[in-house]
Amino acid sequence: MLYGTTAHSATRNVTGMEPWITQDRRVVFQPAGGRYLTVEEHTVELPSGDTIDDWLWLITPDFVNVLVETADGRFACFRQTKYAVDGVTLAVVGGYIDPGEDPLTAAKREVGEELGMTATDWIDLGCYPLDGNRGAGLAYLYLARGAVPAGELALSDDLEEQEIITLDRSDIDAALATHEFKSISWATTVALGLAHIDRAPLP
Amino acid sequence: MLYGTTAHSATRNVTGMEPWITQDRRVVFQPAGGRYLTVEEHTVELPSGDTIDDWLWLITPDFVNVLVETADGRFACFRQTKYAVDGVTLAVVGGYIDPGEDPLTAAKREVGEELGMTATDWIDLGCYPLDGNRGAGLAYLYLARGAVPAGELALSDDLEEQEIITLDRSDIDAALATHEFKSISWATTVALGLAHIDRAPLP
Repeated sequence: MLYGTTAHSATRNVTGMEPWITQDRRVVFQPAGGRYLTVEEHTVELPSGDTIDDWLWLITPDFVNVLVETADGRFACFRQTKYAVDGVTLAVVGGYIDPGEDPLTAAKREVGEELGMTATDWIDLGCYPLDGNRGAGLAYLYLARGAVPAGELALSDDLEEQEIITLDRSDIDAALATHEFKSISWATTVALGLAHIDRAPLP
Repeated sequence: MLYGTTAHSATRNVTGMEPWITQDRRVVFQPAGGRYLTVEEHTVELPSGDTIDDWLWLITPDFVNVLVETADGRFACFRQTKYAVDGVTLAVVGGYIDPGEDPLTAAKREVGEELGMTATDWIDLGCYPLDGNRGAGLAYLYLARGAVPAGELALSDDLEEQEIITLDRSDIDAALATHEFKSISWATTVALGLAHIDRAPLP
């Protein structure tokens, strides 16, 4: 891809876009149990040669989110609560990746467990750190197309109340536009998934 | 909005979608300086009546991200590095909200400081916790339209190398589709901003 530059273009400290180098890392906080959070401090060397010796780094479990399009062109979502969210929110399929599990395998497992469905087409929507500065886990986002019922719902291990709903395209567009998917990775999954569908409609 | 239900619909533990109740909270980790991270443990009561006494909660600074559409219909972005991201990434305007600062004011300030621009139309794309379970800061996302140069670039206080670039619509669509906006809030801002533009094209 060729990028244009505007008349207002400017370059700051660009010396080839070198990455920061991690010189040292140590755990500074880990609660008992420890699965859900580890806080590290990193010593990092900047391209300028300067060093920062207390850069905070958050380790939380990587997770998947999936926008599920059914074989009849609707979207299987949830209406639920979530501790960090005010009121009721819409959500997409999601869950932590098990230790050693491949992200796509986790995505398929969650669609099976949470919706009792399988899908024919799986599109990778990207893998994104939650916090560009401090990590905080990777979100692996997918679009699953051609989803159909398959087997029983698993007994949920989710702590939140949730209800499966399906939305048609105009409903999900409206829900996204009015911020009803209230956690950032859900909004991202829906927006990127719908953009993919618009680029590559099914025959 | 009316939600349809699928033949495969199911309801789990739905008793009116009651929120979890925070009964107690205490700080369990705060590094020296403390601006960038506080870790709390919350005692929360679930709708079932059960209690969790060690629910981790992350407090990090709230921030803004802005997709900037110039008056001639291009998009002002950055090419830059970021510690949590592999290689070079595309990015949108962004920064922490100052203590006591209104999010929209912060967004306008960042567009001035990072691009030396002002914009005529500001669209609220929503406010989202980074982590639906544990908080980790709120992302306030905006689309700024009709942006034009105004004044000088501020001396950057960003530690990363960054270069201003402008993309036309086909370039930014392609960059989003190939996952070149590598941190989740940037991808969200671009995807939601472009969806808004498609719903509400300028005359």
